[in-house]
Formats: sequence, C-alpha cells, structure tokens
Amino acid sequence: MKTVLIKEDIVSRNNERAKDVRALTRNKNVYYVNVMSSPGAGKTTLLEKLIPLLGDRYRIGVIEADIDSDKDALDVERATGVKTIQMHTGGACHITCQMSMEALQALGTDGLDLIFLENIGNLVCPAEFDTGADLNLVLLSVPEGDDKPLKYPLMFEVASAVAVTKTDVAPIFDFSRAAAAENVRRRNAAAPVFFLSAKKGEGIEELADYLLEQIDKKLRSM
Amino acid sequence: MKTVLIKEDIVSRNNERAKDVRALTRNKNVYYVNVMSSPGAGKTTLLEKLIPLLGDRYRIGVIEADIDSDKDALDVERATGVKTIQMHTGGACHITCQMSMEALQALGTDGLDLIFLENIGNLVCPAEFDTGADLNLVLLSVPEGDDKPLKYPLMFEVASAVAVTKTDVAPIFDFSRAAAAENVRRRNAAAPVFFLSAKKGEGIEELADYLLEQIDKKLRSM
Repeated sequence: MKTVLIKEDIVSRNNERAKDVRALTRNKNVYYVNVMSSPGAGKTTLLEKLIPLLGDRYRIGVIEADIDSDKDALDVERATGVKTIQMHTGGACHITCQMSMEALQALGTDGLDLIFLENIGNLVCPAEFDTGADLNLVLLSVPEGDDKPLKYPLMFEVASAVAVTKTDVAPIFDFSRAAAAENVRRRNAAAPVFFLSAKKGEGIEELADYLLEQIDKKLRSM
Repeated sequence: MKTVLIKEDIVSRNNERAKDVRALTRNKNVYYVNVMSSPGAGKTTLLEKLIPLLGDRYRIGVIEADIDSDKDALDVERATGVKTIQMHTGGACHITCQMSMEALQALGTDGLDLIFLENIGNLVCPAEFDTGADLNLVLLSVPEGDDKPLKYPLMFEVASAVAVTKTDVAPIFDFSRAAAAENVRRRNAAAPVFFLSAKKGEGIEELADYLLEQIDKKLRSM
C-alpha cells in the first residue's frame, strides 16, 4: 500500500498550495472556474455556448488543458474570440495546483474578471487535486449513463454544481433525469443539477445565471 | 517535478511485475483480456454481447473493477451467467499489476480459459499500468468524438485492438469513422479498428472472431 501513501502525500501537499492560487485570484479580482468531466462530455462545446452569455458582463479568459493536441484552444478561440491558452500536461491525468498557477500566470490575470480552466477529460484523478478554483463545474453527459455518480463518487462530492449535457439524446440512451439527479444527490446534496443541450440551446441560460450569481457574490465580497 | 519522478518509479516497478501475471496465466492456460475506455463507453454492455459468442468454446470469467458500486458485476453475471467478481479500488484510478494478480487469485483461474478484466473507466491512467493481460481492448464510443486518439495518445498506443462503440448514433454526433480510424492509425498503425453497435448487433461477431484467433494463437503455442 506504499503507492497509496505516496499518492496521499502528493495530494495533500497539492491541496495546501490551493490557498496561493486563491490569494492570487482574490488579489487580481478574478473568478476562477474549474470544468471537469469524462472525455467527450462536452466541456469545450459548453464553454463556446456559455462565454457569449457572460461576455457582456465579464472579461473572460480560458485555459485549455490536454495531454496532447491544440484542438480545443483553437476551437474556443475561434468560436468566442476570448483570450485562450493551451496547456499540455505531458501525460499527466490531472491539473495540479502548480500547473494551475503556472497556467494563470501564462494566460495573465490582468484585465480579466473570469477564467475557465478546462481540465483533462477524466472522471477520477482531477477530483483529487484542488486547482484553487472558486467553483468546480462537473459535467455528466447523457451517453455515459445516469449511474456514473455512484461509480465515480469523489468527482461528484467535490462538485459545486453538476451539468448534465447532451440531454437531447436522452430518449436514445435510456437515461433518466430523475435517477441522475438522485445519484448526484446521494453523493452531494448541496450541488445544483442543470440539464443542458448545447444542440437545442436548453439550460445554458439557467447555468449562466447561476454562474453570474456566484461570481457577483465573490466579487461583491472583495 | 518530484511528483512525476515518483510516478515513473511506481509505473516502472508495476510494469516489471507484469511478467508474474503472464507466468500465472501461461501456467494455467488462460487468456487474459484488459478492457479499457472512458466512463460509459460501453465496456459492460460489450462484455454482455461478446461472452455468449465465445462461451461455447471457452470457459469464461470476468473481473469488474470499479471505484465503488457493484452494478457492473451484477449486470454481467445476470446477463451471461459466467463467474464474475467485483473489485473495488478504493479510489484508485487504474488497476495495478498487484491488484490484477489479487483479482485473478480471487476469481480463481482453475477451470477457466478466458478472463476479461473491465478496468476503471478512465482514458488516461489505466494505459500507464500494464495489468499483465495478453491483450488490451480499448473502446472509443461515438458520443466522445473521433478526435480522442489525438488527445489521449498513450491509451491508443497501448491498444492491441480498438472497438468504436455506439456506431448507431454516429449521424447524431457528427462522428466520422474515417477520421476515427485515421486518428487511431496515427497513434498505432498495428491495432485493428472494429466498428460496433451493441444495440443493432453490428460488428460484435467480427470482434469475437478476432479474439478467437488471438486466443487460439496463444493457447496453441503453449
């Protein structure tokens, strides 16, 4: 069980550093959102739809984290026009606080109010590593199945909010909204659950309103 | 960069132990298949469809690995009637060789010819840890997108074969078979790519035939 002990040590050292990231974003008046999900759950597409709804009010930046490929950063920049950087983790399955800090510095926090971090597509490891974000937005896509909160508990425990994506295909995939919401609730009674379809434009405004409220709450308190 | 060094050390020590698992399965005349994919890509459903096509010829066992929940083992056992055990990793994002060995011992290799390990749903970490399996079967589901081999390179590099699942929904998801096959080929020119729909029953027999060939190749050589 040596492996596990080493890992716990790495995780706890990482999570201690989260306060440095939070101090940076507080000093710079920035709200920082960590977006997590399985591969292909729709993180990039959601950002492309959300940013236009928030862009009137905030100056937005995006950090795209991937093991390899620049596709997401290029797509987000093309679709939204906001400042975007691509970060490669060199094989790592999650973003550490150190990487999070370096990415914020590389993007630059001056002149920005809101920064999204699109984490590595992985429903396990990113949940263990606090990135120092103000809010963890966890996506669960309909094709993955409504049972996933039971199988990947920590991700749903650390979620500030859960967005069920691709709801337009729910009839094809035998996906129950009620079961998904109940399975999230069993892991985390506090996290609101939003049901979205980027294709049909459903639910994006509700999620944007929720984020506006959270962002204003922090920025007003500073 | 200490984290990375520790991790590399753990990975290399793990991978050295893979020969012990391979010695066990060789001694016991067992073929061992490691099934990997993102959460919800259809690993359990594929096993439910494959096992009836292989069960006439081989005595089959299944190891279901999950962080939590017994759902998959119960589903597979109910659907196929084969010997199945559920393994919980206690939060770990992958199966180590040690866990693989313990699971094989818990399942019992006597009286079995073919054992499937359903790994943790994760397109990153399980690729780094050799489980000692004879074959790595990697699933990529259509809703995840045809670009995933570019973003999760190692998983497709370690694949012996790739099964693209849920092809029945390809028209809805703007998924290109040609792009998926080309993206796999860029990571791994040797791995055959199968296109499956468990719902329509397409491609399952071709994959079963491929597995039969691989299994017979090993068992004949012993």
